[in-house]
Amino acid sequence: MKFRNILEAVKVCDCVDSFAFHNGKSSTLDFSFVIDGKLVGYILNQYVNDLETYTVPKSDTESQDLHLFTVNHESCTVEIQSWCSTTESRQKNFELMLAKFKNENRWPLLKNWRDEPYPVYGSEQDPSGVYFTVERGSVQAFGVRSYGVHVNGYTIERNNGVECIKMWIAKRSMSKGTYPGLLDQVVAGGITAFERPTATVIRECYEEAGIPEEISARAKPIGTIQYFMKTSFGYQPETQYVYDLELPPMPTGSVDIENHKYFVPKAIDGEVDSFMLLDLDEIYKRMLNGEFKPNCLVVVVDFMIRYGYITPENEPDYLEIIESIHRSLPFPGPKSL
Amino acid sequence: MKFRNILEAVKVCDCVDSFAFHNGKSSTLDFSFVIDGKLVGYILNQYVNDLETYTVPKSDTESQDLHLFTVNHESCTVEIQSWCSTTESRQKNFELMLAKFKNENRWPLLKNWRDEPYPVYGSEQDPSGVYFTVERGSVQAFGVRSYGVHVNGYTIERNNGVECIKMWIAKRSMSKGTYPGLLDQVVAGGITAFERPTATVIRECYEEAGIPEEISARAKPIGTIQYFMKTSFGYQPETQYVYDLELPPMPTGSVDIENHKYFVPKAIDGEVDSFMLLDLDEIYKRMLNGEFKPNCLVVVVDFMIRYGYITPENEPDYLEIIESIHRSLPFPGPKSL
Repeated sequence: MKFRNILEAVKVCDCVDSFAFHNGKSSTLDFSFVIDGKLVGYILNQYVNDLETYTVPKSDTESQDLHLFTVNHESCTVEIQSWCSTTESRQKNFELMLAKFKNENRWPLLKNWRDEPYPVYGSEQDPSGVYFTVERGSVQAFGVRSYGVHVNGYTIERNNGVECIKMWIAKRSMSKGTYPGLLDQVVAGGITAFERPTATVIRECYEEAGIPEEISARAKPIGTIQYFMKTSFGYQPETQYVYDLELPPMPTGSVDIENHKYFVPKAIDGEVDSFMLLDLDEIYKRMLNGEFKPNCLVVVVDFMIRYGYITPENEPDYLEIIESIHRSLPFPGPKSL
Repeated sequence: MKFRNILEAVKVCDCVDSFAFHNGKSSTLDFSFVIDGKLVGYILNQYVNDLETYTVPKSDTESQDLHLFTVNHESCTVEIQSWCSTTESRQKNFELMLAKFKNENRWPLLKNWRDEPYPVYGSEQDPSGVYFTVERGSVQAFGVRSYGVHVNGYTIERNNGVECIKMWIAKRSMSKGTYPGLLDQVVAGGITAFERPTATVIRECYEEAGIPEEISARAKPIGTIQYFMKTSFGYQPETQYVYDLELPPMPTGSVDIENHKYFVPKAIDGEVDSFMLLDLDEIYKRMLNGEFKPNCLVVVVDFMIRYGYITPENEPDYLEIIESIHRSLPFPGPKSL
């Protein structure tokens, strides 16, 4: 899909108006996911019947099968029933339910099962703030917040005082389950429950791009981007921790390559097809041309804003773009990841 | 006021929950300011009676005095009446009303009258998006969005490969009408209607810190910060265009000062008492010590995040701080300032 401008491209990720639900403006009014009276996500209509009718097989100590959720069709809320109020009980019952739905091929998004636990935040009892964890592949069904890291690998060539910034861009493998063949950051990955973002960076830098720890440890955290996405699988309010990693520029012309320190990322785990070193003009063109995975485009746009390539003077949608890539979310998050 | 942590300090600026009004959670339910059915600001209760009872003296062509606003106490809305539907009419009638209130010493915030027109955005008829302009000193009474620029003047000293970043910090003059004696960016200022942010930077750089255009033109736009403040004067949803301006480091030790290029800002227009070059540890201490003007602190926090001084590893409130300094606002803004 080609875009007329950068705002249109950014809006693929940030397509949910944060205020829509509160204004009752949402066109298809989906359901609020509520735990302990607290809004933690949004659930598409298509999942509600399965949740409403799901029952936990009775155990020796129970007299009958129990519903796991209370669904209120007037207030459009899905709430975990009060009998299931401990971390352990929620954890166990979500695992059982999702395994059942997966085995029955009930929800298409569960085909992308990863065996990676993602945290649901909001608990005031647990010091971690985590209520319980859910399989990564199911996160969009509950529309809870998810977290990842994106690393901008870039080089600066300085010729006669003029700086030229280039970025290492990955082309995703055609065998990836999501967004095959699209362009991506040099390194990106989801943060599993109780993992620190910087640890994710170090791990993914090696796995995805062969960047050793002595280089990846220099990756500098520079903030986050945040957007509120909706796909056919569900709601995806997401936070990405962004890191900038300056890499040595590639030698040009007749430079003595042997003695010139530079670095070329290489695919290790099969998730990346190839890497390219592109200047910002070329990347900008490819963004408008629809070649980027949507949230990777957002990370590049943030980079271009921070480096003064996209400015208030050359971009009429400057403020709207910045608001869209730093969207306020109405759900609890971690005090400390 | 001393702060226990950075989040607490940032929350002085971002003290309004963006979602509070939509949730009906606001403790003192103030009024929505509506133009053409569009929410453009929030009005404190204390102003509503004056607006409700204000009438425009009848002209030759009118048969009676006209109310300028319709106030609905049930829906808590203040709306400009439909007879006043053109830019010219709104402009004229707001000017007359505010001049009257100022002469009658009706609203304390009008003592800070600046003779600077600020835009109210949201118009779909005018290509500029501006409905009309209001005096800067009255903006908080209507709770409409306002816009400014902040310039981080910084130096990087490189000693044996170790970088030390320092920032030029201004101490506001004791005679300033707002926040006298508090610490501030090297340069900051409001954007008046139809002014470009970069032009504001160039103008204020000279007026406030004696920075000539050959230096200020190098100031790099790096994004915005946005917060939703409330004071005793009213609501203040505000966007600040942030610029980074690297200045030559100060000479140290026995350096030949004559031949060493450096730059010291100097107060020109009396708004600044003095300038100091401080390292980030010292600035961080002074922030917690309550020495900074609240929104200038937010700009420094954004700088510290972008330069990797405040990180996900050393700041437990990292995500909440970043969301607070990039708050989504439920009001229309400019397509292009």
